[in-house]
Amino acid sequence: MAGGQYNPLSETAVNRIHQAALAALSEIGLANAPASGIAAMTAVGAIMGTDGRIRFPAALIEDTIARANRSVTLCGRDPRHDLELSGSRVHYGTAGAAVHMVDVHTREYRESTVQDLHDAARIADQLDNIHFVQRPMVCRDIPDNREMDLNTVYACCAGTTKHVGTSFTEAAFARDAIEMLHVMAGGEDAWRARPFVSNSNCFVVPPMKFATESCEVMETCIRGGMPILLLSAGQAGATAPASIAGAIVQAVAECLAGLVYVNAIAPGHPAIFGTWPFVSDLRTGAMSGGSGEQALLTAGCAQMHRFYALPGGAAAGIADSKLPDMQAGWEQMCSNVMAGLSGLNMVYEAAGMHASLLGFCHESLILGDDLIGQALRCLKGIEVSEDSVSLDVIRATCLDGPGHYLGSDQTLALMQTDYVYPTLGDRTSPKEWIERDRPDLLTRATEMKERILSSRSAARFDALTDAEIRKRFAIHLPQ
Amino acid sequence: MAGGQYNPLSETAVNRIHQAALAALSEIGLANAPASGIAAMTAVGAIMGTDGRIRFPAALIEDTIARANRSVTLCGRDPRHDLELSGSRVHYGTAGAAVHMVDVHTREYRESTVQDLHDAARIADQLDNIHFVQRPMVCRDIPDNREMDLNTVYACCAGTTKHVGTSFTEAAFARDAIEMLHVMAGGEDAWRARPFVSNSNCFVVPPMKFATESCEVMETCIRGGMPILLLSAGQAGATAPASIAGAIVQAVAECLAGLVYVNAIAPGHPAIFGTWPFVSDLRTGAMSGGSGEQALLTAGCAQMHRFYALPGGAAAGIADSKLPDMQAGWEQMCSNVMAGLSGLNMVYEAAGMHASLLGFCHESLILGDDLIGQALRCLKGIEVSEDSVSLDVIRATCLDGPGHYLGSDQTLALMQTDYVYPTLGDRTSPKEWIERDRPDLLTRATEMKERILSSRSAARFDALTDAEIRKRFAIHLPQ
Repeated sequence: MAGGQYNPLSETAVNRIHQAALAALSEIGLANAPASGIAAMTAVGAIMGTDGRIRFPAALIEDTIARANRSVTLCGRDPRHDLELSGSRVHYGTAGAAVHMVDVHTREYRESTVQDLHDAARIADQLDNIHFVQRPMVCRDIPDNREMDLNTVYACCAGTTKHVGTSFTEAAFARDAIEMLHVMAGGEDAWRARPFVSNSNCFVVPPMKFATESCEVMETCIRGGMPILLLSAGQAGATAPASIAGAIVQAVAECLAGLVYVNAIAPGHPAIFGTWPFVSDLRTGAMSGGSGEQALLTAGCAQMHRFYALPGGAAAGIADSKLPDMQAGWEQMCSNVMAGLSGLNMVYEAAGMHASLLGFCHESLILGDDLIGQALRCLKGIEVSEDSVSLDVIRATCLDGPGHYLGSDQTLALMQTDYVYPTLGDRTSPKEWIERDRPDLLTRATEMKERILSSRSAARFDALTDAEIRKRFAIHLPQ
Repeated sequence: MAGGQYNPLSETAVNRIHQAALAALSEIGLANAPASGIAAMTAVGAIMGTDGRIRFPAALIEDTIARANRSVTLCGRDPRHDLELSGSRVHYGTAGAAVHMVDVHTREYRESTVQDLHDAARIADQLDNIHFVQRPMVCRDIPDNREMDLNTVYACCAGTTKHVGTSFTEAAFARDAIEMLHVMAGGEDAWRARPFVSNSNCFVVPPMKFATESCEVMETCIRGGMPILLLSAGQAGATAPASIAGAIVQAVAECLAGLVYVNAIAPGHPAIFGTWPFVSDLRTGAMSGGSGEQALLTAGCAQMHRFYALPGGAAAGIADSKLPDMQAGWEQMCSNVMAGLSGLNMVYEAAGMHASLLGFCHESLILGDDLIGQALRCLKGIEVSEDSVSLDVIRATCLDGPGHYLGSDQTLALMQTDYVYPTLGDRTSPKEWIERDRPDLLTRATEMKERILSSRSAARFDALTDAEIRKRFAIHLPQ
């Protein structure tokens, strides 16, 4: 589905942001690149300063943009879930690093576990409008980071055959995981042919500093054939300028530096331009992912991606609300529909996220599928053709026909193609609703969750593969 | 606040819709015009057919558009609430004809009363983002239509000094109401100078038929100096084509016919181009105001208004959900933010509406104020200027400064001007939220409702005026 009907920025504004990003890269540059990155980037024309900052001449940036991958295919383990990131094609999915699970009935926030993560992947696997499963929460029951990183990949992949995204704490853990992915894929060649996991990589610590360890993870993943999400997650008013435009400038500059880095190491390696600026509530300094400012930041970034014609991603769909209530609904829709209409290729954190990313909720993920289905209908837009303007239908109905369009051929045909129906969203009349004993949205979402989780995940690996994985790696999830 | 950054239709599509509407008007025309309307419209060039349909040559339509009012000011009783409808200026408010009040705590739907209506006006009066109060519900406790129409105007005006919109069942009732408005205004001249009530007029029964009695009401209101909302409320798939484009074509054609009518009677009379196509859920034929299709219909209509450069209005913000739950939140935000971004001058039914317009809810109205505040932030957009791109701030922060933007001059300045903070929307951390005993959104909305309703409405009339009104008209609301 393609967006792009919404342009939060004028052409002049886009160019101004681009010029400011170029200036930031050539004048300010980035600190803290690892030695390997400095070597790679200076080899292609970046300039290491005596102040420890690496700077990027405008020509290097322009060249890099011109030569970078114009499209990225993110593979699913099942090819029917492949995502083609190009133009204004829009995909929605999960992401994040929530530390809590939200129980909608007891209103509890408790620590999230590897089972919760696996269940989230299983649920997402069954939802048509959730196109990928980037790890939305942290396995708090696995204290060892190495085991946590491995089990994160396992729990996600064992729950879905959609594309999976994840992070790694250290380069060595990424190496382990890639070994495990070889087993899952049936060999290194099969993995490299269709890498079904990407690395969500926070390669910068905004403002304008490389994250040394994450850069080492990134280099490892690039060598291992894993697509990279170049993730710059500044927070406007804290680690990025408080002005929306300034936060976009900084995120764009940082991701352009990341793009130089990736292409210096492996020209044309699949990379997603991950400008993910967040927003502070300036009264408290706390993050506010559900705000209008967040929706604008994300939409503005999407327009910059389109300007560069680079596959891009950003965050939307975050609720500040602690529960899937009315506030969560308006917060999630606001940024999700604006992200889609602005043509964002990858809409991360699009479902299930509460408390400004601190909590993840299975019921909310399920309801998010309806919400995103509606957003997708909006970005599909209005078809205007000889047929759809309906002059003949209007004429036939008014002059010779029944005076209404119920049951007309056009109506019956469009019912299947042009109309989207929610799964849990309730459209009954008050009378019918009362007769059905006032069904509660969250209760129905819980019922659907239990139905999905009552059967074993179809994405589980075959017995031999699973045994091989469990022999070589400490898998926490029960068989 | 101005929208227009979102264009659901291409330029070609806009023109195609316009041409189809012209064709519908010249070839199909409208049935059932009252004799007075036929006389007025044929006098300016419309053609009465032997089949009882009045048709409109394209030249007449183009001339009418060229000569019609380019802007309308809708007055409040208090001038600080005046609304200027022009360009892409966006205003949100209530509207509708709900027959139920929704009790969020008992989950009851009960018949709405004149007191409920008055209370809705009082609440709306206190909400910054509700810019006008068109009658959202019907006084079901006043069985006599004449008394109901009069009391509707009284209950709204006694509750708010913002602009009020209303309907009339018969021309004679409109005459009564205008008499009452003279008293409220302090005389006919004062009323005519600043008419603070507009007539929401369903002048057509789609498809392509004038509503004879409503047209007579319209003529009365025009003569009485009352602005007219030319309301065409077809339902796609029932009384309008099921295709989004076709429903827009028909609504545009009907409103253009209405515009000819108004201008034939009183050239330049303030009229709002009220293309309000609704959507059917084609599985049941029931209305679905909360759907993505509805959001697209409304946004597409807004773009047609901009094409004609005519002040326009349409419906958004309707929830199909029976309660202000997560579904209601996403439904209300979807169409409200898209309507705003598409530059709709008057966003009717923007808050409080549930069950596809059958129920109105005070708590939802209050929460709608937060929701619309966020939508308004989105359509305010991204300021891109020398200052806002923040290159100097980034440089100062990264090279010589503290390495973060907390407490920078820019951050502190933008906190007041660029950021919107919700009133009831909760942004606390899970820890804080639990410490505060998990505040419930609806409970907090009820508390705010009770606070607003605990004091007497400041919009009430002075004692002499009120006595005069009560002497001449049967006012149901207690003094």
